[in-house]
Amino acid sequence: MSSYQTIEVKTTQDIEFIDITAQVRDFVRASKCGSGILLVYTPHTTAAVTINENADPAVPCDIGEFFRHRVPRQDYFRHSEGNSPAHILSTLAGASEALIVENGEPLLGAWQAIFFCEFDGPRQRRVFLKIVPG
Amino acid sequence: MSSYQTIEVKTTQDIEFIDITAQVRDFVRASKCGSGILLVYTPHTTAAVTINENADPAVPCDIGEFFRHRVPRQDYFRHSEGNSPAHILSTLAGASEALIVENGEPLLGAWQAIFFCEFDGPRQRRVFLKIVPG
Amino acid sequence: MSSYQTIEVKTTQDIEFIDITAQVRDFVRASKCGSGILLVYTPHTTAAVTINENADPAVPCDIGEFFRHRVPRQDYFRHSEGNSPAHILSTLAGASEALIVENGEPLLGAWQAIFFCEFDGPRQRRVFLKIVPG
Repeated sequence: MSSYQTIEVKTTQDIEFIDITAQVRDFVRASKCGSGILLVYTPHTTAAVTINENADPAVPCDIGEFFRHRVPRQDYFRHSEGNSPAHILSTLAGASEALIVENGEPLLGAWQAIFFCEFDGPRQRRVFLKIVPG
Repeated sequence: MSSYQTIEVKTTQDIEFIDITAQVRDFVRASKCGSGILLVYTPHTTAAVTINENADPAVPCDIGEFFRHRVPRQDYFRHSEGNSPAHILSTLAGASEALIVENGEPLLGAWQAIFFCEFDGPRQRRVFLKIVPG
Repeated sequence: MSSYQTIEVKTTQDIEFIDITAQVRDFVRASKCGSGILLVYTPHTTAAVTINENADPAVPCDIGEFFRHRVPRQDYFRHSEGNSPAHILSTLAGASEALIVENGEPLLGAWQAIFFCEFDGPRQRRVFLKIVPG
């Protein structure tokens, strides 16, 4: 019945969208919070959290391919690790998503899924979940 | 005096920014919540919510035109519905915006308006509003 | 012990990322809120808030340079002030970031810092901070 939890995500590709909807839903149910706001937050600077469609797995693939093509390395980048595109994508997609909780469930549209976005994998990653009631 | 409400938005173009500030403000006032955090959330995967200027209606038009030009269809897209650009824009602009409520009003800057962003219209759309007090 | 505060930010360049992590952390500690959700929100339409790495200051510089190159002025822009790129970047990076508060501290990853993003400077700017407990 905690309002805070960490989940682990293992990525296998450089750019990858991993559906974490089931884990988020389990957390909301276990929290026994009937109504509030839920925050899904990643503490990494080369990753993100987004909400999009997963009914057709081609959707997250197309998003990832577009990001790969449109945010490539640039001669003017100075960050020595060479992963500035991943940092840029982290800012564009955002470190978190907030959701509404009603009747003990996260409110998601019919086609919405919650994704952890890997932009500099493969790596072992974490996502923090938190609910405030209201 | 509910902390949760759905509003309906009807869009008429493929890419369109619709100002929903008045509806959001009405919801906050009706909620009688003096202080808290407000979430403006869309349950659609080819739409978004953003905050930007509406004093000059050319601003949201320029944003929409830029998105149309810079996120076009690609030969490598595999999603069969053909609307992958709309899904990408949904992730870039984000499914929600959070705002501060103080003294019973949403805190908006002098030039800020809250927009529902249509990326695959025209359609009938929904936006969920939720406040948690604090 | 207030749950709401404004901080002032002075920018010196057209595009600039300013680390406000220390001010945000001070606010959270002063609020005496042990657990909740924190919102870091800017009321400007040509600015944003983002979370990214600041261990190497080249990271925010690379992000800013990429934005400058990839979101330039376009012949088709109609907004008379000429700063449509700044409005677009505001929507892409987002007006706010939400964070989790646990044990009286904002939960940040080892490399994460909170940045005010200037896209149309130099200007005097504001950031609003708000916590809801839970």
